Amino acid sequence: MGSADIRHIQSELRRVVDAVRSTNPLAPSITNTVTIQFVANAQLAVGGSAAMVYMPDEAEAMARAAHAFYINFGTIEPVYEQTLPRVMTLMHQSRIPFVIDPVGIGTGELRMRLLKAAGNNKPAIVRGNASEIIALAQLWGIGGTQHAVVRGVDTTQSVDEARHAANSIARFTGGAVAVSGPVDYVTDGRIGVRSYGGSEFQRFVTGSGCSLGGVMEVYLTKSNPLIAALAGTNVYNWAAAKAQEQSSGSGSFSVHFVDNLYQATPEDVARVPMDIEAVEGEEIEGDAVG
Amino acid sequence: MGSADIRHIQSELRRVVDAVRSTNPLAPSITNTVTIQFVANAQLAVGGSAAMVYMPDEAEAMARAAHAFYINFGTIEPVYEQTLPRVMTLMHQSRIPFVIDPVGIGTGELRMRLLKAAGNNKPAIVRGNASEIIALAQLWGIGGTQHAVVRGVDTTQSVDEARHAANSIARFTGGAVAVSGPVDYVTDGRIGVRSYGGSEFQRFVTGSGCSLGGVMEVYLTKSNPLIAALAGTNVYNWAAAKAQEQSSGSGSFSVHFVDNLYQATPEDVARVPMDIEAVEGEEIEGDAVG
Amino acid sequence: MGSADIRHIQSELRRVVDAVRSTNPLAPSITNTVTIQFVANAQLAVGGSAAMVYMPDEAEAMARAAHAFYINFGTIEPVYEQTLPRVMTLMHQSRIPFVIDPVGIGTGELRMRLLKAAGNNKPAIVRGNASEIIALAQLWGIGGTQHAVVRGVDTTQSVDEARHAANSIARFTGGAVAVSGPVDYVTDGRIGVRSYGGSEFQRFVTGSGCSLGGVMEVYLTKSNPLIAALAGTNVYNWAAAKAQEQSSGSGSFSVHFVDNLYQATPEDVARVPMDIEAVEGEEIEGDAVG
Repeated sequence: MGSADIRHIQSELRRVVDAVRSTNPLAPSITNTVTIQFVANAQLAVGGSAAMVYMPDEAEAMARAAHAFYINFGTIEPVYEQTLPRVMTLMHQSRIPFVIDPVGIGTGELRMRLLKAAGNNKPAIVRGNASEIIALAQLWGIGGTQHAVVRGVDTTQSVDEARHAANSIARFTGGAVAVSGPVDYVTDGRIGVRSYGGSEFQRFVTGSGCSLGGVMEVYLTKSNPLIAALAGTNVYNWAAAKAQEQSSGSGSFSVHFVDNLYQATPEDVARVPMDIEAVEGEEIEGDAVG
Repeated sequence: MGSADIRHIQSELRRVVDAVRSTNPLAPSITNTVTIQFVANAQLAVGGSAAMVYMPDEAEAMARAAHAFYINFGTIEPVYEQTLPRVMTLMHQSRIPFVIDPVGIGTGELRMRLLKAAGNNKPAIVRGNASEIIALAQLWGIGGTQHAVVRGVDTTQSVDEARHAANSIARFTGGAVAVSGPVDYVTDGRIGVRSYGGSEFQRFVTGSGCSLGGVMEVYLTKSNPLIAALAGTNVYNWAAAKAQEQSSGSGSFSVHFVDNLYQATPEDVARVPMDIEAVEGEEIEGDAVG
Repeated sequence: MGSADIRHIQSELRRVVDAVRSTNPLAPSITNTVTIQFVANAQLAVGGSAAMVYMPDEAEAMARAAHAFYINFGTIEPVYEQTLPRVMTLMHQSRIPFVIDPVGIGTGELRMRLLKAAGNNKPAIVRGNASEIIALAQLWGIGGTQHAVVRGVDTTQSVDEARHAANSIARFTGGAVAVSGPVDYVTDGRIGVRSYGGSEFQRFVTGSGCSLGGVMEVYLTKSNPLIAALAGTNVYNWAAAKAQEQSSGSGSFSVHFVDNLYQATPEDVARVPMDIEAVEGEEIEGDAVG
């Protein structure tokens, strides 16, 4: 994993951002009612086409049509008891890649049951904050002795503390995991990437994480899970860092952030500062970029 | 349909915009969770009062109180199986005019059943993109041999391709149909109006169409279906064209767009460039205005 | 209630605003789908942590974890028939303080049944417009001969007309009541405070009231009901008045308003102009502040 690998990753990032802009891929979701509009607008801003559903047959039809799906567990509603098992089983059997965001993990009998079922169906990308990723590894029985401390929807643990859980989940699913925090961590279980940027304002805007999951789904229609998760992470780090300088509060930050998502070029996404390492081990020399 | 007719339409547009501003009419809705806040804010910005409901008895009470209603089919939820047939039957029997937006047509057994029932209850205004209007005419058995190609919530067909379906629906319901696109088409089955303006940004903002249906409902409380559909179409074309010049992305576009809806005067709405023609036929000479 | 009392109230306002900023308290809600994102963003902007739920066991878990809750009756959904009685009973029995906003009172059998049950469980804060407060006092049998006139979600009565109902409710619950209007009125049944400021734009932005209830809940985690209701009312009056000068329509007003909530200092909140009086009676001399 030398500088050739880094250049390969950057080249893939450019390719997927461009491919999405030029094809406007359909990216359906089941996502929480709090941030559902923000998820859709973020997906549209990067070049995707959003479609949100609740009913079982609609979820199946959309997953088939898009060959991708996003499930955000933020607000569980009764119909999800029918919808989520049906669409997740279909996707596992038909090899349709999907993204999950385990928001709210730790609360609610139905949410926990559905999140457990998600593990059996191997999501291509899992995105969450540090505590959520640690809690999910525990729930799936692959977390070792580590314990999560979730408070409402917020993390109480650092991204570094979640790296082991993230790597374990990625190996378990065969996909990628993205841990959001001050410095984000994205892994496919073989290589791990730290992505830099973002803004303190993001924790004052509801849906900063939820919408990132939706954007990763958009990129997943045109690339493998690692590149999709990294493209989403990078475009968020770039757009948020730029919006921070333009904003005087969390209200204007939201507006500038979406403007920046809309303006982001393939080059902007590829050039976000990253550290890349082999998962088993020690930091590889010379791989800091950006 | 000469220049006297055009002046009459412009005069009616001025009147309805002003009447709404001075009376703040109640305009209740059942609308999708993705864009529900945008629908309400757009209705408020033009001078209406928004009220969204889910339960059957609430829908009936609101339809009676407002003598108008808006049903957007974007996100179907289980309770709609009870609510929509009850409120649509009431409105048909009590001659309460209502607007529908058939978002998502083509997907979902319950949505298709409810959309079919909508036809029996003769909505005063149908608003959609070209593919949705063609698909609805098909579903209602009045579309002839034309076939729709819906992709998620997006159109794959042009407004001109949907003119026949729009005219057929308007004659079937006795109301008006509005087809949204680069150049919008509004008809009551006797005359057809092309309205110019708008912005490329609209397709990057979720709810640009949904909220237009809600604004048409506001105007429908004070005018006939054709004028209400045209007033909504025109105020959107004016506000979006102006917002495009003020914006640097889809985030700021949304903000400026709502500001412009708030600022739009009766004169702004009446002066939007329009072409007016008799439906049976050929373009009438000399009827381009604005 | 002389100037020492006023200084005590201002000191408490400073304390609660600061305490929230430094502890980021969890503030869970059941709230309507129209304005749910705005509620969360307003709660975050003042320093709270938002979490919205629908399911009965999640509501109970969140109320226990946060020792506070907010219930907004704006859009009633079927699952509320299970969720609301369970969480309200728990909170009453466990002395967990909660805020209610009786939006939509007068419409819907289930809403009226749940609002009646809310009275038995004694909410710490009730927030509404004048007509809603008068209607709630009627529903709870403590309104005397006064009659409410609600139109959709809008008031048709003045804040002064609702003072008697507000005082009655506060004495009945042992908590506080906030009546929103051109001049707001907040009372705990013993003293009544008029708070000045705000903006005409607020009635053009959906959720101006709903989000205020959520912000009061945030403050309620760190103070008594009167101070929490007053802190929320004051920060809204300050942020809205400032936003009015910065805005050219209801779209930009929303953005500036959230920026101002984010920027508001303890001193800004304490210094909002207020009149304070003993409830039984006559205006106390010399108590105008700000």
